[in-house]
Amino acid sequence: MKTIKNATVIGAGVIGSGWIARLVLNGVNVNVFDLSSSAQESVGKVIKNAQRAFDQLLSVDLPDRGSLTFSSCVVDACNSADIIFEAVPEDLTIKQDLYSEIESCVGKGVVVASSTSGILPSDLQTRMQHPERLIVAHPFNPVYLLPLVELLGGNKTSQKVIDESSSVFSSIGMFPLILKKEIPAFIADRLLESVWREALWLVHDNVATTQQIDDAIRYGFGLRWAQMGLFETYRLAGGEKGMRHFISQFGPCLEWPWTHLTDVPEFTEELIDKIAAQSDNQSSMHSFDQLVQKRDSNLVAFISALKDNSWGAGSALIDYEKVLAEQTKTILFEDRDFTKTIQTYSTTVPQNWADYNGHMNESRYLECFSCATDNFMQIIGADKEYISNGNSFFSVETHIRHLDEALVGESVNVSTQLIEGSGKKVLIFHRLFHGDGRLLATGEHMLVHVNLKLRSSTKPSELIISRVSKIYQAHKMLSRPEGLGRAIGDSFK
Amino acid sequence: MKTIKNATVIGAGVIGSGWIARLVLNGVNVNVFDLSSSAQESVGKVIKNAQRAFDQLLSVDLPDRGSLTFSSCVVDACNSADIIFEAVPEDLTIKQDLYSEIESCVGKGVVVASSTSGILPSDLQTRMQHPERLIVAHPFNPVYLLPLVELLGGNKTSQKVIDESSSVFSSIGMFPLILKKEIPAFIADRLLESVWREALWLVHDNVATTQQIDDAIRYGFGLRWAQMGLFETYRLAGGEKGMRHFISQFGPCLEWPWTHLTDVPEFTEELIDKIAAQSDNQSSMHSFDQLVQKRDSNLVAFISALKDNSWGAGSALIDYEKVLAEQTKTILFEDRDFTKTIQTYSTTVPQNWADYNGHMNESRYLECFSCATDNFMQIIGADKEYISNGNSFFSVETHIRHLDEALVGESVNVSTQLIEGSGKKVLIFHRLFHGDGRLLATGEHMLVHVNLKLRSSTKPSELIISRVSKIYQAHKMLSRPEGLGRAIGDSFK
Repeated sequence: MKTIKNATVIGAGVIGSGWIARLVLNGVNVNVFDLSSSAQESVGKVIKNAQRAFDQLLSVDLPDRGSLTFSSCVVDACNSADIIFEAVPEDLTIKQDLYSEIESCVGKGVVVASSTSGILPSDLQTRMQHPERLIVAHPFNPVYLLPLVELLGGNKTSQKVIDESSSVFSSIGMFPLILKKEIPAFIADRLLESVWREALWLVHDNVATTQQIDDAIRYGFGLRWAQMGLFETYRLAGGEKGMRHFISQFGPCLEWPWTHLTDVPEFTEELIDKIAAQSDNQSSMHSFDQLVQKRDSNLVAFISALKDNSWGAGSALIDYEKVLAEQTKTILFEDRDFTKTIQTYSTTVPQNWADYNGHMNESRYLECFSCATDNFMQIIGADKEYISNGNSFFSVETHIRHLDEALVGESVNVSTQLIEGSGKKVLIFHRLFHGDGRLLATGEHMLVHVNLKLRSSTKPSELIISRVSKIYQAHKMLSRPEGLGRAIGDSFK
Repeated sequence: MKTIKNATVIGAGVIGSGWIARLVLNGVNVNVFDLSSSAQESVGKVIKNAQRAFDQLLSVDLPDRGSLTFSSCVVDACNSADIIFEAVPEDLTIKQDLYSEIESCVGKGVVVASSTSGILPSDLQTRMQHPERLIVAHPFNPVYLLPLVELLGGNKTSQKVIDESSSVFSSIGMFPLILKKEIPAFIADRLLESVWREALWLVHDNVATTQQIDDAIRYGFGLRWAQMGLFETYRLAGGEKGMRHFISQFGPCLEWPWTHLTDVPEFTEELIDKIAAQSDNQSSMHSFDQLVQKRDSNLVAFISALKDNSWGAGSALIDYEKVLAEQTKTILFEDRDFTKTIQTYSTTVPQNWADYNGHMNESRYLECFSCATDNFMQIIGADKEYISNGNSFFSVETHIRHLDEALVGESVNVSTQLIEGSGKKVLIFHRLFHGDGRLLATGEHMLVHVNLKLRSSTKPSELIISRVSKIYQAHKMLSRPEGLGRAIGDSFK
């Protein structure tokens, strides 16, 4: 698989920032040129959002972050790039002029990837000295989270450039959809444009508000399209008789004059005011940052769910994690320092962890400890592969002391001490700390090794036994945790 | 909230079967008329799929199933219905003739709800004796799982019928979107039709295969639309400057001639063959039943994730569960029997509670106990009103013994015993049982009464003290739970 080490991004708007975040988090050094003085700040925000999303999404480690630098001119920004992402406004002349400037200073092997939503690559490359390097790589917002990238070349683009670029996009977690034929607006935006046009008429004609249109999508077919798209969904709508039956039943309806012509309503001040006001009415109770985080949190949950079902965007995630696992050197057991407790978990308390008392709900304390236990298990060698081979550890007993509160948005982390570990049993002691150092809770957990087929306790592998033993020899030198081995209510007696 | 006890469904195809499943599982008695001899079998399958999905989705109990009967003629089927769902082919004359037959045998208060995807209710009702009863209630496949129902009346429909029907749809877990204006194809199908038409051209012109079109949707904007729809998504695409900026940036692109006219490609045998072959190539490795179950499993996961984030279809689920919980009659304190433990919680294990070991995750054991504790608190008088007045109980210590496993879709319940209760402290002991009677876990919980403003422990109200005392006097006669007062690992020593 082809990977890249250095990239340039020209234009750091919503799309450009998304590229930057995805690249930097995947270990690519990125050099940025943008005219705006606030680009550095807004890019930083997007990277932060991307990091949060990736932390929630990925079960394997990302490589070390790539470096991020901002240049004051195009020529400086393009220095040493393997690939240049162009994400400037949709204006053919602006883009062509930019490519001339780029070609004046880079070697002929450097790929130029345009993020255009619809201009033909054959038009983009007409004035280029080395047009074979030009591709369109059309991503979707948020670029760091949505896997789709439409990939196509113009008449003069080299097939090798397309193939190698496809491999690069896979290496940073994307799903490259290679188009066989140039067509304005490609595939996705043709579909989106048709919906957008129809939606504008619905608002213009006072048939529906922006809120009603969004609700018609997200409570209905939007939920289908997150997994199956149009044709597979309709295949099912045809019942057991399938696609042919569906077309014979619903095809003819299409000839009825239901929808508008391709006329677009004129963007009068009145129409723009109407849409902006309806949109404010619908969404302005959430700040931009809140909406972005809610969106990302939902996307992470969808993609994670699809991963559990090995489907759609979840399959792309599975492939990506395989690539990461290969690329990323996880800390070797031998390199770990066990003279202190092990950092096993950290998170920021999300909104949905709060209960009616306004703080993190008691069951989320155990969720933190459960994640910390999972990480501890990976460290000792009871990882996914081990489990898929039919063995695991089950929790048999848990003792939690709730000592203090955590509120939404506050950071918490868990450190773990091994208390006992011999034969089938492991006894661990977690401490949940607030980011400010306060001890929020302790968790004492007895786990037993089981064979998943027999559903009965068995001895773990030799590797696990030896690792547990090594940690135990080190951790028994640590002071015995306060509160260990207690029964409920001891402190009240 | 208006509810119904008896419904009739005319036409048991994909849509009619979905209505039947949703109604029966919500305790409504359903009488069906369908011309097909295989209707009974196919409806049975759909109900089975719906039951599986509901078991995974819901954290509260459904009411007892409604009865299901099949009649051999329309007149018999409509006997005793509160509402009649019409889900027959999209042919105005067939529908109008059916309404005449229905009106010949039912009282004038019976509502007739058409599932038409696009015919105007004003046209549907022209020949009716009591046109005020006619509504369009347009659902989306799978009807038992997707919350959206577009609801509208014609010129002669009574507003009262629309309002009451809206309430009925909410009571069976749907999200009624009430249209203010009649328009052919309503809202969602206008959007869908525009995409369908554009997609057909892409296939017709050999720009993309059905697989590529589906991938362009489900790896990209489909994931966005499961939560935000079109306008809220574009608001974010505009960056912090919002909707106005987005329109000024992308509005003009729409005037470019990217998409086809409203011409629909002619459904020649050749085009139908092409689509059917591409669809087979894409999906025929999965059987119809496999695809349906995969789809439902993904939908359940999406809606569950949205519930965790209190968003979109997840908010509709939260409202629905409240309705279901209200239907379950609450019992007065004075009428309760405290000579045994208290039933405080029951649920079916939803899909997102499973972990990589394939069973209910350890943190969900505490979630069950936490819900049981909440219910116990309501019983003793520490309810929402009490908390909003500035007092509550906080968990300070928890001891869980994990004794056995529960799998997705299995029922579990909690019974609660009060061990100590005096002054500021309450010690309770929960037992989590499987529906088959197996003890899955025990939870011992120490709670302390706190003043939420002072954030320090205080005495509870006199009402709570007297109720706790009454339960304690009864529960101290019960046998002391096995495992009470233990420290972790006592059983291993």
